[in-house]
Amino acid sequence: MRSGERRAIAEAATLLEALRPGARELVTALGDYLGQALVVGFTGPPGAGKSTLVNAVVAELRRRGQTVAVIAVDPSSPVSGGAILGDRVRMTAASGDNGVFVRSLASRGSLGGLSPAAVRVIDALDGAGFDVVLLETVGTGQSEIDVAEIADVRVVIAAPGLGDDIQAMKSGHLEIADIVVVNKADLPGASITRAQLEAALAMRVGGHGIPVLTTSALQGSGIAELVTAVDRVGKERLAAGVVARRRRRARYLIARAAADLVARRIKEGGPAVLDALADEVLAGAQTPEGAAGMLLTRL
Amino acid sequence: MRSGERRAIAEAATLLEALRPGARELVTALGDYLGQALVVGFTGPPGAGKSTLVNAVVAELRRRGQTVAVIAVDPSSPVSGGAILGDRVRMTAASGDNGVFVRSLASRGSLGGLSPAAVRVIDALDGAGFDVVLLETVGTGQSEIDVAEIADVRVVIAAPGLGDDIQAMKSGHLEIADIVVVNKADLPGASITRAQLEAALAMRVGGHGIPVLTTSALQGSGIAELVTAVDRVGKERLAAGVVARRRRRARYLIARAAADLVARRIKEGGPAVLDALADEVLAGAQTPEGAAGMLLTRL
Repeated sequence: MRSGERRAIAEAATLLEALRPGARELVTALGDYLGQALVVGFTGPPGAGKSTLVNAVVAELRRRGQTVAVIAVDPSSPVSGGAILGDRVRMTAASGDNGVFVRSLASRGSLGGLSPAAVRVIDALDGAGFDVVLLETVGTGQSEIDVAEIADVRVVIAAPGLGDDIQAMKSGHLEIADIVVVNKADLPGASITRAQLEAALAMRVGGHGIPVLTTSALQGSGIAELVTAVDRVGKERLAAGVVARRRRRARYLIARAAADLVARRIKEGGPAVLDALADEVLAGAQTPEGAAGMLLTRL
Repeated sequence: MRSGERRAIAEAATLLEALRPGARELVTALGDYLGQALVVGFTGPPGAGKSTLVNAVVAELRRRGQTVAVIAVDPSSPVSGGAILGDRVRMTAASGDNGVFVRSLASRGSLGGLSPAAVRVIDALDGAGFDVVLLETVGTGQSEIDVAEIADVRVVIAAPGLGDDIQAMKSGHLEIADIVVVNKADLPGASITRAQLEAALAMRVGGHGIPVLTTSALQGSGIAELVTAVDRVGKERLAAGVVARRRRRARYLIARAAADLVARRIKEGGPAVLDALADEVLAGAQTPEGAAGMLLTRL
């Protein structure tokens, strides 16, 4: 795996994704090799041209001599899932380049968002020695917040024509961006979308320094500028050190496991307790928040 | 509000959505009026024609003399959000029918999925006396699971051409369906998609009784059959009784508040504890799951 054998890398990724026997031993064995890769998150709504942009970024990184692994997280939507996986398989087959590795993952898991499996697969690809790991997710609330916790550099992708109002961006999801991209810059309205995003960023604390770049993944324009911007932010973030980055992933996995554990305990142990509290809420004697505090105490 | 005054209904919905002062008193005052409406969840991936199908269902329900409220949950994706809200506003303005009420909601909230605000808005519209409340959400994992917990009838929407592989549906999200719809039946491939879904359902325990219907919301075909199927399942579910349905919503709100509380405690109180546990995980001395158990004990 460390010598770049693709089958070994694929097996390691699967081992960690599925938490098969030996997964823990593999992470321990990888030890000092972990935390070296720059992890770059790409999020954006369906229709923003995310996959095409990520493919263009991969090509540019290769041109600069960097090895790249891509983790494409499937939004778990039953039908569109297949299409994304299909595209990915085609892309990988076409590339025939040992410096690129692509893995598609379903975002299963009871709590939605980025799956712990995806975070473990980062370890496999980081341990395999790729310079950059690109994490591509559909922007659906939780997955963006998760990417913000895990990635060193966060790229948020928008496109003209997806919505005539940028209000929603102010209410939260622009907050996680290190770099904002208006993709499909060849479409009409790109400059308006860019201006709206810049105005929204100007209202955000610390938002003035966030670049809004325009790209056309199809025409190949703006890609070099985007990769340079990612590189600049990445250099700052890598300075935080290997331990800090590995700790961040471990903290995330623990917090997710804790949330799953609470959900499971509520489901298994608490139906009678929960029904009694629900009746108190229905009677107006208790708020759901107050009842939640009592529930946690009792479980 | 009880006499159907639209401004009063809108204000009540906002009061509960935003948990403004008086929200709790309103729910208490509505008391016995709650739990009467049939709540029908519609989920499906972007591109399945969900909004158009829901509009057609609204029209058919109106034809049958039922009053309908629609809660359209915005997927929180920064850019596409605006478009959905825009469509909704246009639809409402065009209808001019007092028997229909539409409310769009952002699916904010740290945990993704259906927001507790959406569940509270169901109370407002249920209390206002609508016969049916339609809950429309994009299928993004968590929101589908949430809809399964909240809705009396669960409709899962697919469409041909969204993916050439239906494998993903077997892995979970078909599980929540009471009724499966292949929308856009006018497109080629609809019968193949239907056959694939039927095969997937046949492999699911209890899946044999789940109808797979074909509709074309644009051409208006199959809508009456869909509404009849919803009505049939709805009659069974309403027999469970008012208290059971109100309890389910309260239980959901409590469980969500509990998960939020845990996330907040981890964030506020636990950074030092979490870092120590993360280091144990990194050293291989502890699994994330084991560390999660210790974290919950210590908080």
